[in-house]
Amino acid sequence: MSEAYKELERIFHPRSIAFVGVTTSNPMHWTRTFWDSARVFNFDGPVYAVNPRGGQLDGHKVCLSLDDVPGDIDYVIGTVAAGIAPEIVRKCAGRGVKAVHFCTAGFNETGATESAGLQEELVRLSAETGIRIIGPNCMGIYCPESRLSFDADFPLESGNIGLISQSGGNAIYIVREAGWRGVRFSKVISFGNACDLNECDFLEYLIEDPATSVIALYLEGVRDGARFLRLMERASREKTVVLLKGGLGEAGARATESHTASLAGNNATWEALCRQFNLTRPKNVEELVDILTTLYFMPDPGGRNVILIGPGGGASVLLTDEFERRGLRLPALPEKIREKLLGFTQLAGNMLRNPIDYSQTMLESDSLERAVGILTDWDEIDFCVGFFRPSQFPPRGLSFILREEGTIANSYRASHKPVAFICEQAIIPEGQKATFSLMQKLAASKIPVYLSFAAAAEALSAVVTYNERRRARRGD
Amino acid sequence: MSEAYKELERIFHPRSIAFVGVTTSNPMHWTRTFWDSARVFNFDGPVYAVNPRGGQLDGHKVCLSLDDVPGDIDYVIGTVAAGIAPEIVRKCAGRGVKAVHFCTAGFNETGATESAGLQEELVRLSAETGIRIIGPNCMGIYCPESRLSFDADFPLESGNIGLISQSGGNAIYIVREAGWRGVRFSKVISFGNACDLNECDFLEYLIEDPATSVIALYLEGVRDGARFLRLMERASREKTVVLLKGGLGEAGARATESHTASLAGNNATWEALCRQFNLTRPKNVEELVDILTTLYFMPDPGGRNVILIGPGGGASVLLTDEFERRGLRLPALPEKIREKLLGFTQLAGNMLRNPIDYSQTMLESDSLERAVGILTDWDEIDFCVGFFRPSQFPPRGLSFILREEGTIANSYRASHKPVAFICEQAIIPEGQKATFSLMQKLAASKIPVYLSFAAAAEALSAVVTYNERRRARRGD
Repeated sequence: MSEAYKELERIFHPRSIAFVGVTTSNPMHWTRTFWDSARVFNFDGPVYAVNPRGGQLDGHKVCLSLDDVPGDIDYVIGTVAAGIAPEIVRKCAGRGVKAVHFCTAGFNETGATESAGLQEELVRLSAETGIRIIGPNCMGIYCPESRLSFDADFPLESGNIGLISQSGGNAIYIVREAGWRGVRFSKVISFGNACDLNECDFLEYLIEDPATSVIALYLEGVRDGARFLRLMERASREKTVVLLKGGLGEAGARATESHTASLAGNNATWEALCRQFNLTRPKNVEELVDILTTLYFMPDPGGRNVILIGPGGGASVLLTDEFERRGLRLPALPEKIREKLLGFTQLAGNMLRNPIDYSQTMLESDSLERAVGILTDWDEIDFCVGFFRPSQFPPRGLSFILREEGTIANSYRASHKPVAFICEQAIIPEGQKATFSLMQKLAASKIPVYLSFAAAAEALSAVVTYNERRRARRGD
Repeated sequence: MSEAYKELERIFHPRSIAFVGVTTSNPMHWTRTFWDSARVFNFDGPVYAVNPRGGQLDGHKVCLSLDDVPGDIDYVIGTVAAGIAPEIVRKCAGRGVKAVHFCTAGFNETGATESAGLQEELVRLSAETGIRIIGPNCMGIYCPESRLSFDADFPLESGNIGLISQSGGNAIYIVREAGWRGVRFSKVISFGNACDLNECDFLEYLIEDPATSVIALYLEGVRDGARFLRLMERASREKTVVLLKGGLGEAGARATESHTASLAGNNATWEALCRQFNLTRPKNVEELVDILTTLYFMPDPGGRNVILIGPGGGASVLLTDEFERRGLRLPALPEKIREKLLGFTQLAGNMLRNPIDYSQTMLESDSLERAVGILTDWDEIDFCVGFFRPSQFPPRGLSFILREEGTIANSYRASHKPVAFICEQAIIPEGQKATFSLMQKLAASKIPVYLSFAAAAEALSAVVTYNERRRARRGD
C-alpha cells in the first residue's frame, strides 16, 4: 500500500472527532446531521461538540473553543461561517488533527473575490500545518466501517461500492436511493470545492482499497487532467468504474462553476474517456443508482437475451419496446416451452410468448414459480426480468401485493439465470406502502429492483454492454 | 355533425345498461369493475345485472338471462366467456341495443383458430343485427359526462382530452396517472381487438366532438391505413394530437399480435407520419402522461428559454443538463436581476445564476414568491420551472413540505410566465405522503407536475417543439 493510501486510510478511520460549530438548539439544522450521525452510528471514540455559545448537547458539555477540548482530536468537522474557517485550521495545528472537513459554503463557488481569498488561505494553512482539508462546501465522508457518516439514516452496513461525489446533495441522493434497494457502500466522499484533497486523491485511495470493487463518480470538473487520466486507466483495469459527469451544456458549465467552482470540460472529451476505458456512463443520478444496483446484485448474464414476465398486455408491449430499443433481445418462445406452460395455465388473458403476460390468478398457486423455472431453463435465455406496474390496478386492490410479495420474491429467486425485477412504486399513499414493501422484499432476496420500465432497460443494457466489452478486452 | 358522429354519441351516452356475466360473489373480480363504476358514478338510467347463477347484487335482482331484463336496454357490457359472446349478441337483437362492449378475452389475440372463428362470428352478427361491437378484449368506454366508466376510481369530472387506447391496461394507467396530476378527460376508449368499431371510428368521433381539443392515441396497429391517414391529417389540423405507438421492434410486433391481434407497422412509417402532421410522439405511457399534463395546464410559452428554481446545487446542475440536452435554453442571469435577488437573500449556499439554487430558508418568508416574481418579469424568459427532489432530504425532515406546500404553490402561482413544477415522489412511506400532498396542491393550482427531472425536460421540450411547428404552419 502506498503512503498516500495509508494517510487517507487514517483519515477515513478517525479515533476521535470534534464537531466545531454544531448547533445545540435546532435538531433539524444541517450542522446537527453530523453529530446525530455519529450517535446513530455509535462512533466508538471520543466526540466533542464545540460552539462559542456553550451549553449541553445530548449529555455532552459543549466546549467554547477547540482550545477547551480536553483530549486528542483526530478529525474535525467544521460547520462554522466561512470567515472563521482559517482560524479553525490554525487552532488545529499541533493537536494531532489529521484532517478538517469543512461543510461550510461561501468560498470560490460564490464567484466573489473575498470568498476566493478565504479558500486560498485554507490551502496555504493546509500546506503549512500538514493538516489535510476536505471541502469546503461538501458533506465529507461516509464510511460505515469506521462509523463515520454525514447522514443518520444511511445504512449501517458496508458493501463493495465506493462513491466519489463533488456534490453532497447528489451523494445523499445516491446512497439513499441505492440503499433502499439493498445496495451498500464501502466509502462515500462528498468533496465539494476540493481546495486540498481532491477527486484524484480519493480515486487513488479507492483503487487501492480492498473493500471497494466498484467505483462510482459524480464529477463536475477535474483539476489535474493528466493525473486523472492515469488513474482512470488504472481504475478501469482493476475495478468496475461508473462515471456521471454533471454540467455538460453551456448553462450546466456555468452552474458547476457556481456550485463547486469547477471547470466542466466538454462532452466529447468525457465520451472518449469512457469509451477508451470501458467506463459505464449514466446520464443522471437515477441511472447511476440503477447501474450500481445491477452491478451490486446481478452476476454477468453472459449475453443480451432476456425473458420478460409480468401482468398486463399493454404493459408487456411497452416494456418490450423499451428493451428492444436499447439492443436487448427477446427470443420467441418455442412451441415446446409454450406447451409446458399451457399445462398449468390458461390461454385467455395470458400472452404466452416472450414477453409472458400472466394474469393475477397465476399467483394463486405455484404457477409463477413453475413458469419462471421452465422459462429460465430455456437455453436461449441469458437473464430474466419480472415486472409489476401498480397503476394498472385499482389502488385499493394493491393490498394483494402485501399478501403475495413472498410468492413473487420466491418465484423469481427460483430463476436458473440472473434475475432482475421492475417494481414501479404506486404514487398514491394507499398503494405506495404495498409497492415499497414488495421492493424491500425483493432487495432482501438480492434481486436488483428498478422503478420504471425505461430505467430497467437502460441500466441492464448498460451493464450487459459493459460486460461484453470487458470480456472482449480480456479475450474471453 | 355526421351520422357516424351521432351514432357514436348515442353509444357514448346510453340511457340504460345491462351487465351480462357480472359476478355477485367476488367484489375484487374484474367484471365487478363495471358494475361498481356505474354505482360510484351514479349512472342515472336503469342498470341490470345478468348472470345465470342469479342472486342479488347491491339490492338489484340478478336476471338469469338477457331475456329476463324487463325494460329497454341501450348498452350491454359483456364479461362472459368468449364462447358465449355470439349468443349474447343474438339475444340483443330486437331489444333496442345500440352497442355491446365485450371485455372478454380469448379471441384473435390467442392465435388459435377456434378463437378467430368466434371473433368472425361476432363481426357477422354485428353486420346482421346492426348492433355495434366494442372490443372484444378491452375495457370499453369512460365518459364522465354520461357517467359511464370502467373504473370506479376515475375522476368524476370531464376535461378536454380524448383518449383512444388499444390496450385497457394502458388506458387505465394513463387516466389514473394523469388524473392524480389534475388532468381530466372528455372520452376514453379502450377498444382492444376492434372487430367492429375501430380506432378510425373513434378518431373520427373525437375529431367532431366539441368537448375534445386534445386527442391522445395508444395504438398497436391500424386496420385501414388510408382512412387512418386521412383522419390524422384532419385531426392534426383541427386538434392537438399525441400518438404513442406500441410494438415497434421484432418482439414488440409479436407481442401486439398476441395482445390485440394487430399488425404493427415499422418505426420509420410512424415517424414520418408524426413529422408530416406535427403529432407529438412520446416513447412510452409515462411520457404520454407528462405531455398531456403539459398541454392540459400550460399555455404556449412562445419560446424555449427557461428559468429553473429549486433547492440543491448538485440537483440544479443535473436538471440543467437534462434541459440543455433536449434543446431548452437557460439564459444567464443578468447582474441587475441578481442584485435584486441579493436584496433579500444570502449568497452562501444559494446559487443565484440560472438555475437558481435556493436554500430551505427561502421558504421561511415571502422570499420565494418575490424571487419567482422578479425572475419571471425578466423578458429573456419564456417559462419557469420549479423543482423539489425529496431524496436529498432526510425522510423525517420531509414533513416540512406539509407545512410549506401552500407557500410553494402560491409562490409559483405568482409567476408572470407559464409555469411548471417537478415534484419527485419520495419512495419511502414516511416521506411519500408529504410529496404526494405537494403534488396534489400544485395540481389544484393548475400547475403541471412532473415526477422526474428527465420527464419534465422531455415533455416540455416536446410541447415547446410542437408549439413552434404549429406557429410555423400557421405562419404566425
